Amino acid sequence: MKTKTIRLKNRPVGVPKPGDFELVTQELPGLSQGEILLEASYISVDPYLRGKMSGTKEPRFELGQPITSKLIARVVESRNPHFRSGDYVSDYLLWQEFQIAGGSGLTKIDPHQAPLPAYLGVLGITGLSAYLPLLDYGQPKPGETLVVSGAAGAVGSIAGQIGKILGCRVVGIVGSEEKAELVKEKFGFDQAVNYRGSNDLNAAIASACPHGVDLYFDNVGGPISEAVIANINPYGRIIVCGAISNYNETTPALSPSLLPLVVYKFLRIQGFLIADFSSRFPQALNQLHEWLQQGKITYSETIVQGFENLPNAFIGLFEGLNQGKMIVEI
Amino acid sequence: MKTKTIRLKNRPVGVPKPGDFELVTQELPGLSQGEILLEASYISVDPYLRGKMSGTKEPRFELGQPITSKLIARVVESRNPHFRSGDYVSDYLLWQEFQIAGGSGLTKIDPHQAPLPAYLGVLGITGLSAYLPLLDYGQPKPGETLVVSGAAGAVGSIAGQIGKILGCRVVGIVGSEEKAELVKEKFGFDQAVNYRGSNDLNAAIASACPHGVDLYFDNVGGPISEAVIANINPYGRIIVCGAISNYNETTPALSPSLLPLVVYKFLRIQGFLIADFSSRFPQALNQLHEWLQQGKITYSETIVQGFENLPNAFIGLFEGLNQGKMIVEI
Repeated sequence: MKTKTIRLKNRPVGVPKPGDFELVTQELPGLSQGEILLEASYISVDPYLRGKMSGTKEPRFELGQPITSKLIARVVESRNPHFRSGDYVSDYLLWQEFQIAGGSGLTKIDPHQAPLPAYLGVLGITGLSAYLPLLDYGQPKPGETLVVSGAAGAVGSIAGQIGKILGCRVVGIVGSEEKAELVKEKFGFDQAVNYRGSNDLNAAIASACPHGVDLYFDNVGGPISEAVIANINPYGRIIVCGAISNYNETTPALSPSLLPLVVYKFLRIQGFLIADFSSRFPQALNQLHEWLQQGKITYSETIVQGFENLPNAFIGLFEGLNQGKMIVEI
Repeated sequence: MKTKTIRLKNRPVGVPKPGDFELVTQELPGLSQGEILLEASYISVDPYLRGKMSGTKEPRFELGQPITSKLIARVVESRNPHFRSGDYVSDYLLWQEFQIAGGSGLTKIDPHQAPLPAYLGVLGITGLSAYLPLLDYGQPKPGETLVVSGAAGAVGSIAGQIGKILGCRVVGIVGSEEKAELVKEKFGFDQAVNYRGSNDLNAAIASACPHGVDLYFDNVGGPISEAVIANINPYGRIIVCGAISNYNETTPALSPSLLPLVVYKFLRIQGFLIADFSSRFPQALNQLHEWLQQGKITYSETIVQGFENLPNAFIGLFEGLNQGKMIVEI
């Protein structure tokens, strides 16, 4: 049978362009014993993929090969006793409508427990990336001020809500008035700062954080992070989940070094690979699921229709087109 | 009786100048019950004092008030039953030849256990600042590469030797060929890079660290740190003890943000206040003393004579005039 595939054609320079990807149709072989045929249902597009396209993030994508990201797929045909036709599974898989998998590494998911796309968001790597690093590296204490950048985004919106559950005062940085309303109304942040609406972001953050910033959950980097960190308190913890403002830079923007502030204020700046927390995923997913059912967290999704639109959905992440998790429905 | 005192006259702009300090003679009152009269023997001058002079590091020094740093002093007269004339004590005390203390907070030190100045260096805050953060935040593993900047300095020379004891490959960054020899010959570093002798520091560090940098113990900040961090491995730990290259900046130098690298390489950048480790000081000092007696660590001192030379000794730190701990002997 045939499948559509999206391959990396060129390593993007600056903001990725549709021409950096190519849609091809290829033939799939028949199933061998132990294999299953998967049909993609939902495909996650995420800012971190940008680094793998340039090769700054290992392992990198190879030119002429399909992109890989987190997928939810339906088993169409199975020659593996652990999977039946109609099962839904999730894993890092190829940007293909159909693909053959061996079965190892696949997680079965239950469409009756939660809507399928939620397994790419709050009940997937997105939710885990918000929860576990915030808890472990942030060690939030009730009454502390947590600032979240990219606050209307997939991870940011969840990180902020978890901050609220843990008793923090939560301030979100967003890129539009609409998103500012969203994080306050829908996600229950105490305050929001629209960086596009501010001439003096440093002062705007100071005003939104009268007791300074104890924790910073950073998804964006760049001048926004500079302004937040200028307001940080002694012993501040900075969890660096993403740096979307830097991913498309062709020449790096320059800024004053953070190192003197790290000395003077005893800061911790912490990155992470979420896979390193994998032993705690089941427990963390249970907690996230419970909060979701209790209505303590909610989420936004931006669902784009059609396999062919994967590159555009991905590129849209850098234009802030998404509210919450950006997902392509096949 | 009268004492000489050195006060902060002006908040330094850029590199501190002798005129930022003033030497005055003042009258001391008589001792009240519970008080002791101290005569300064050795006074520690340290880069971190610079921040307290500008007020970037809290608590800051006030204009017209004496500078405070770590001192070793002899008890001249005592009206406190816990101290006798002739005892030696150590604490954060005033830059004065004589001063009156209440007795609380003073640590008695034994001149028979080690030379007195060592209690300002390897057996004091200097040794502790090298040992405890390296151990806790660095978590060095045998075979890992540790880079130390300011490697011929007080903390750096000890941090590197502890790295060797713990099984690391240790590379020091220094500012002269003489210091490069010193850290290799006297302190047993595996390699040294003289940043003043290199046109391409990034490449020089890469060549000295063929397996990359796993741990970076940073005393200097600035372009040296940029070059080290450019060579850091995934999961690299950066312990930021000092940023001497930035302390005298009037306008901060600009550099590419570290945050994208923190994301891509899962880095930790950690500052600290050594006082937060105080419950472990006794145990750590025992360990340092044992290593010293076993000849596993050694140290350098630069001892400047004369109370009046305190400002010059302090200023000399920023010119790299010291090898190891800079101390003024009164």
